[in-house]
Amino acid sequence: MKTSVCIIGGGPSGLMLSQLLHLKGIDTVVLERQSREYVLRRIRAGVLEHGFAELMREAQCGERMDREGEIHDGFIIAHNGKQRRVDLHKYSHGSSVVVYGQTELTRDLYEARDRMNGIVIHHAEDVQLHDLLSANPHVTYRIGDEARRIDCDYIIGADGFHGVSRKSIPQTVLKEYEKVYPFGWLGVLSRTKPVSPELVYAKHERGFALCSLRSQVLSRYYIQVPLSDNIEDWPDDKFWDELKRRLPEDIAARLITGPSIEKSIAPLRSYVAEPMRYGSLFLAGDAAHIVPPTGARGLNSAASDIYYLYHALLAHYQNNDNTGLDTYSEKALARVWKAQRFSWWMTTMLHTFPESNFYDQKLQQTDLEYLFSSEMAQGALAENYVGLPF
Amino acid sequence: MKTSVCIIGGGPSGLMLSQLLHLKGIDTVVLERQSREYVLRRIRAGVLEHGFAELMREAQCGERMDREGEIHDGFIIAHNGKQRRVDLHKYSHGSSVVVYGQTELTRDLYEARDRMNGIVIHHAEDVQLHDLLSANPHVTYRIGDEARRIDCDYIIGADGFHGVSRKSIPQTVLKEYEKVYPFGWLGVLSRTKPVSPELVYAKHERGFALCSLRSQVLSRYYIQVPLSDNIEDWPDDKFWDELKRRLPEDIAARLITGPSIEKSIAPLRSYVAEPMRYGSLFLAGDAAHIVPPTGARGLNSAASDIYYLYHALLAHYQNNDNTGLDTYSEKALARVWKAQRFSWWMTTMLHTFPESNFYDQKLQQTDLEYLFSSEMAQGALAENYVGLPF
Repeated sequence: MKTSVCIIGGGPSGLMLSQLLHLKGIDTVVLERQSREYVLRRIRAGVLEHGFAELMREAQCGERMDREGEIHDGFIIAHNGKQRRVDLHKYSHGSSVVVYGQTELTRDLYEARDRMNGIVIHHAEDVQLHDLLSANPHVTYRIGDEARRIDCDYIIGADGFHGVSRKSIPQTVLKEYEKVYPFGWLGVLSRTKPVSPELVYAKHERGFALCSLRSQVLSRYYIQVPLSDNIEDWPDDKFWDELKRRLPEDIAARLITGPSIEKSIAPLRSYVAEPMRYGSLFLAGDAAHIVPPTGARGLNSAASDIYYLYHALLAHYQNNDNTGLDTYSEKALARVWKAQRFSWWMTTMLHTFPESNFYDQKLQQTDLEYLFSSEMAQGALAENYVGLPF
Repeated sequence: MKTSVCIIGGGPSGLMLSQLLHLKGIDTVVLERQSREYVLRRIRAGVLEHGFAELMREAQCGERMDREGEIHDGFIIAHNGKQRRVDLHKYSHGSSVVVYGQTELTRDLYEARDRMNGIVIHHAEDVQLHDLLSANPHVTYRIGDEARRIDCDYIIGADGFHGVSRKSIPQTVLKEYEKVYPFGWLGVLSRTKPVSPELVYAKHERGFALCSLRSQVLSRYYIQVPLSDNIEDWPDDKFWDELKRRLPEDIAARLITGPSIEKSIAPLRSYVAEPMRYGSLFLAGDAAHIVPPTGARGLNSAASDIYYLYHALLAHYQNNDNTGLDTYSEKALARVWKAQRFSWWMTTMLHTFPESNFYDQKLQQTDLEYLFSSEMAQGALAENYVGLPF
């Protein structure tokens, strides 16, 4: 098979880029290792930054998001029994975020791809990238026992942290930056009315807690847990009790509990790979960078990669202008690192660090106290939370 | 001897409070362990925040400062050969800082105390504080072989980090918070024209450097050095060479060098003692808290202590209102910790940390890059640098 752009990974980043390019008449093929059902079962992010929502609209996939998603103009930070609201609207020149589950968004993108007869190949096993330093790279893979090959101009590696794309860049070229945190997030999804119309980030001496939501009937709650904990350590009742302990009393009293329909523990990790381009291969999203979920940058960090790639490929195919492709890595990384900085800061401000000394604990409290005493500090938080300009 | 307020320590904080109270008819005595000449020889801070300059004027000691001091509306941060200016005036609603040596300021305060016949007792040895939990505390000390005693209503501990005041609070009451940094500052004072009219904070892989000044003929330069270094390791020539290496080329080329007239290595430390009140004793300035000098908070952190104490003592003596005294510790510490946070942040952003990993180094660079891409971040820096509201 031949195509212009071969996209590895059928998650939201890959599908979105495929859809955007297709609308401009540029051929793409998306290769996904899993089944569509598997991809759609994954519970992931739920807060879309302003720029990501705009991309969805540009991809002509924003209709249901705009109808069913919730615009959030602010969120709550709870600390020592006090609750303070961060006014995103006020401090980011009228911007906001959209609460809309990644699962829903991926479904919308798949449906759009179906309508346009976009090619998304599932169950693609043993994907390998070849001749990346040439102008004629190709991709090989298997469907069952059948070996296949795609020739293309460019390969987009949007296949996540564990994907093959980044691993195809030689170790001598790739520089990796990593930070691990001494805790994870235990997340529970439940078919209950969310305790708060806005997200609640709670700092508590027992550990961080987050009240999030996917819709008005679907709640998503998280608590910080030691990395040594397992799902089996956390039956539903114990989870709800611990969550309540970490929330301000009035919020805890309002909490509606119910059976968990999904429960998982995720470690928190900060990771960046550089460069994000290697010859004909361009990395995007989790394939190149991971953030801890505090601050909701995960999917949103991918948004700017897709935006830059979309415009760079457009300039190449429409005007034979390679500037965007040539500067992609540098440009993308500049924004990626700012999202890393913000996610690291939100994480360190709100979590309990087992090894931190008294001075560091006071500093952490002061960070929050300064935040709520300063319009400038709230403005800096807000502009990062809604997403820095592309 | 009897007085209303006995002030331990004849540095700028103690003298300023003594002067302010005297102007309102409240009796004070200042006890200083050293000679006046010794106090005036100490080379210390040189950047006064807005609120400190206002206090000097209220103490009727601002005339020479306003005539000879320099108003600075901004400063430079240099990084990777790039120079960016932080516009204090623009981002802090028209505020600024005054560059005026602490030595000069202390001299002005002494002269004001002389003019008003204020009592400042030098060479006070073996100072001891007594009956702090009673309403009639007293202070004993020696002048040579002569034992003396001062009875008073209140004692102000403005005798610095090594003074007796904080040590007079029982260990069971005192809580101490401390952070040490794995480097020190080597400082050189030289009778040369400053290389830049504004301060230059330089981040460099070889370590931090600062170009500061006391006046247009008196320069103050600093470089980050390992804690193991001694003054003998740094003859003048070696110091100037190393400083030049860490500055942007055009600044290094303009640098006028000369013999050092003072040279010292100071470790960097963050320290806070809580509470700042114990019975009749009130701590102020370095006696209760120390910051690393990055961000120029040292003397300025004392300013709010003096401001709060001045108004609290005034309310007590004029209106028999003890609210200010009773809330002093909490109020002072809230601002102290914000200055600690800012000094820690400026220090970590600009210094080279020997043990930091690649991820942390990138995060540090990104902090600077975000700073210069964001008006909000520059606003937050500026409002801290000129001094948060009292």
